[in-house]
Amino acid sequence: MRIDAAMTRYAIGLDFGTESVRALLVDLATGATISTAVEPYADAVIDERLPGTSRRLPADWALQNPADWLSGVERTIRATVAQSGVPRDAVAGIGIDFTACTVVPTAADGTPLCRLDAFRSEPHSWPKLWKHHGAEREAQRITQLAAKRKERWLPRYGGRISSEWLLPKALEIAEHAPDVYAAATIIVEGGDWVVWQLTGTLARNACAAGYKGNWHKRDGFPCPAYLAELKPGFETLFTEKIAGSVVAPGTQVGRLTPAWAERLGLSRETAVAAAIIDAHAAVLGSGVSGPGTLVMMMGTSTCHLFMAEREQPVEGMAGVVEDGIVQGFYAYESGQAAVGDVLAWMTQHATPPNYHAEAASHGISLHDLLMTKSEGFGPGGSGLLALDWWNGNRSTLGRSDLSGLLVGATLGTRAEHIFHALVEATAFGTRAIVESFTDQALELSSIVAGGGLTRNAALMQIYADVTGRPIAVAGAAQASALGAAMLAAVAAGSRGGGYDSLTVAVERMAPQPSRVYEPNRSRAAEYDQLYREYKRLYDYFGRGENGIMRALRDRRSGE
Amino acid sequence: MRIDAAMTRYAIGLDFGTESVRALLVDLATGATISTAVEPYADAVIDERLPGTSRRLPADWALQNPADWLSGVERTIRATVAQSGVPRDAVAGIGIDFTACTVVPTAADGTPLCRLDAFRSEPHSWPKLWKHHGAEREAQRITQLAAKRKERWLPRYGGRISSEWLLPKALEIAEHAPDVYAAATIIVEGGDWVVWQLTGTLARNACAAGYKGNWHKRDGFPCPAYLAELKPGFETLFTEKIAGSVVAPGTQVGRLTPAWAERLGLSRETAVAAAIIDAHAAVLGSGVSGPGTLVMMMGTSTCHLFMAEREQPVEGMAGVVEDGIVQGFYAYESGQAAVGDVLAWMTQHATPPNYHAEAASHGISLHDLLMTKSEGFGPGGSGLLALDWWNGNRSTLGRSDLSGLLVGATLGTRAEHIFHALVEATAFGTRAIVESFTDQALELSSIVAGGGLTRNAALMQIYADVTGRPIAVAGAAQASALGAAMLAAVAAGSRGGGYDSLTVAVERMAPQPSRVYEPNRSRAAEYDQLYREYKRLYDYFGRGENGIMRALRDRRSGE
Repeated sequence: MRIDAAMTRYAIGLDFGTESVRALLVDLATGATISTAVEPYADAVIDERLPGTSRRLPADWALQNPADWLSGVERTIRATVAQSGVPRDAVAGIGIDFTACTVVPTAADGTPLCRLDAFRSEPHSWPKLWKHHGAEREAQRITQLAAKRKERWLPRYGGRISSEWLLPKALEIAEHAPDVYAAATIIVEGGDWVVWQLTGTLARNACAAGYKGNWHKRDGFPCPAYLAELKPGFETLFTEKIAGSVVAPGTQVGRLTPAWAERLGLSRETAVAAAIIDAHAAVLGSGVSGPGTLVMMMGTSTCHLFMAEREQPVEGMAGVVEDGIVQGFYAYESGQAAVGDVLAWMTQHATPPNYHAEAASHGISLHDLLMTKSEGFGPGGSGLLALDWWNGNRSTLGRSDLSGLLVGATLGTRAEHIFHALVEATAFGTRAIVESFTDQALELSSIVAGGGLTRNAALMQIYADVTGRPIAVAGAAQASALGAAMLAAVAAGSRGGGYDSLTVAVERMAPQPSRVYEPNRSRAAEYDQLYREYKRLYDYFGRGENGIMRALRDRRSGE
Repeated sequence: MRIDAAMTRYAIGLDFGTESVRALLVDLATGATISTAVEPYADAVIDERLPGTSRRLPADWALQNPADWLSGVERTIRATVAQSGVPRDAVAGIGIDFTACTVVPTAADGTPLCRLDAFRSEPHSWPKLWKHHGAEREAQRITQLAAKRKERWLPRYGGRISSEWLLPKALEIAEHAPDVYAAATIIVEGGDWVVWQLTGTLARNACAAGYKGNWHKRDGFPCPAYLAELKPGFETLFTEKIAGSVVAPGTQVGRLTPAWAERLGLSRETAVAAAIIDAHAAVLGSGVSGPGTLVMMMGTSTCHLFMAEREQPVEGMAGVVEDGIVQGFYAYESGQAAVGDVLAWMTQHATPPNYHAEAASHGISLHDLLMTKSEGFGPGGSGLLALDWWNGNRSTLGRSDLSGLLVGATLGTRAEHIFHALVEATAFGTRAIVESFTDQALELSSIVAGGGLTRNAALMQIYADVTGRPIAVAGAAQASALGAAMLAAVAAGSRGGGYDSLTVAVERMAPQPSRVYEPNRSRAAEYDQLYREYKRLYDYFGRGENGIMRALRDRRSGE
């Protein structure tokens, strides 16, 4: 079949999650979903023992099998194309979003070391998934040395390098498996590795490189002198193993190799875009491509992403990256370590049997039962106030040793009171993040939300009332995959039936918000008062005046 | 049958509780229980409608029927004497302990006004039980005026007069039922009224008069000028309606009237002792008759009683009364408004279904399951710290608008962690009370505990470790009734086969402690540290630096 300039063109977004990969085939003109398919990874998250061996992994480990990613690409793309009936030449491009930081050590030709017989049973040769936490000590060393040396990049990450990121994971390999480290000609992000496989070209996406790899558009990667002081011999990490150009997400890295074109049943002309981190893809899929709008992905935790035209120090931000989402803008990341998780903790561990029975008899979830019971409480109507730090405070204090607080309990306190206070506390946590931006005079005019918690209308209204701003719920059901498809559209370019800029792609391809929550003036005024009380506890317990949370963490039995 | 000087002699203790009266017949020489009987009040606590009428009572009301008290005296005494086989002349005396402040308005001859046709359907004519809370506003007026006039008696009650006490209850009658107030020639405590019925003599016991009636041995009752300013016409309250001598508990008020001797089947020589409040009777029954030992009655709430040789201002004490328990000593009362109640709140309202199922499968209570699961945590091992103010702080801050606090929660926090922290918090609350005494250089050398919570060995050990002092568990199964029997022994005197002093009566008649909990040195040292953290939160939230608890109380929905 020949390319016909008049025919409808399509893009495929591939969304690599923690448990599965999803493909979304969309109409390039409208962004409408034509078909979708999901493929779970056969080996899922490898956290007990290495596949094919009896070797047990430590408790904080999490690996993946790169073969699962590739078979996922093949199966989901073949399924979506087949379902849609779209001709093979009509697929203009493929875009990829991926969990990060997920790190693959490979040979020079891109073969993951874990596929080689010599390293198959060596855990450090396998891709370390974003939530692999084996590099805590390395992360502390990295942070401490950077602080001592006053490395310029440290403040861009809120003064702390997470054990989940590239440098700690690479140092962990070097420390604990020097032979693997020596054999790893290349160390690469999972998303970039998949693009490399599909195109034969290795490029680093600015999003993952910036947020997880300490890269900066002007300053580059951390310097050899710092790396040498960290560990002798480590100074060539970025100059050798992590070499390759860094490009903005959506940049065309190449076209499908003949082998992959055949394997997928697609044209060799199919453009492949530089990847992006999954959460950041959702910004695009939520219809945001420029400064002024905060995007919150609200699930077990909440990720906050925000673009601006300049770089500013923002308290406790997780990172700021030029070109991190859209070329030309600085993308700031912030977050709350537990949101849905705090509410799930409450329903699972602190709600009595009669509530479970009542929810079951109504055929609703406990979450919905508790929301219903607390409707009409109004600001602070539970008589309780909480600090939402059940999993520490990621932003804006950046302290994982903080913990949750509840004040105001009486003999009349019931589960719905505690639940309501926890919902309010997570909203206060978001307001603290909003204010960390506006305190720096970064203009924040609107909020767009996505993720599972947006289905809870009462919760969303509390967020609007607490922040005093309208909150739009993104219309896309699969915002990350749609965002990846937008990258494909830009990689294809207007000549390939796509677009020449991400801004235009987002404008054309993103659906309208499904709903907008407007703040209620009088409740917002009451929440202003209550937020001041929250902020007072936040400062008192969070900034060291009262160090009880740290002291209690140290006392915890068995830790 | 004639009195034989060599024959064994007995005493009866009558313990008037909230729901029933108990009689204990004991051997005067050893205190050993010979027989016991309990009689529930037919009308129980009258809190919905007046007996024989359809008149509904307000939600915060609690009345009793005085006829129930008298039929209880008759039935329980007849039953214990019959069971024991003791000859009628062998009962040397009767002692009474009673709930307080329970207030009876009567005619000049002692007939309760509620027994008169004219007042039968008037709620204010009925005895108001200790937990009647209809006089909140009167209590506030009384406290405010006393503070304004700097009445000398106010500091003896921690600066606050409770709505449960005599003056608010009497003022409530005067305000809301002036005809009842006018007809009430006498207003009398329930315990004193029963003694009056049995002997024909009206005397006021110093315990109830002191703790509940603002009486002081040197200063007497509040002065007419204060009362007149409170309400014109009210100035004669103490000079007319509450006239009668005030005597120490155990003083012989008289002997049984012929009618009552016949009704009970006892000798007319049977001595009747001046009454005492039920909690205070338990001090005697627990083997304490002098200074230096703190007695804690640990149940839903905890009452702390302590005798000393001098009167000192002690922070937040509920009252200090000379001769309040034993003549010649100052008896201090303090307390925690919720102890067992906080633990019961936790098991009922914040423990998930799987714990209920597990407790049921082991055939144990949730309370015991949670204690078992938290064994071995060690000081602060739950990673949590709580302020135990689920029902406000009675002592030492004396603020009912304070509320509970929990700090240190994580996603790993489970019910047993919270439970353990709550047990520790109530122990810290007790330590704060202990220190309120020792800070005034009042010597406190030992602690004796009674009440239902003493059955929890792990909890008792935590109390010993937190206070750093041995805690003896009182040996008496019915400490209040035994204490009342000791009063009977003193009223009978040595010539009647009893004793001439309460100290000797207690020494002879109290059983040994059933168990002594010794503090563990290393845990006590750790608790010293943790208590400092508790005290820091206590001061921060309890003394006004952070007023969030009051602010939240004001916000509570529906209040």
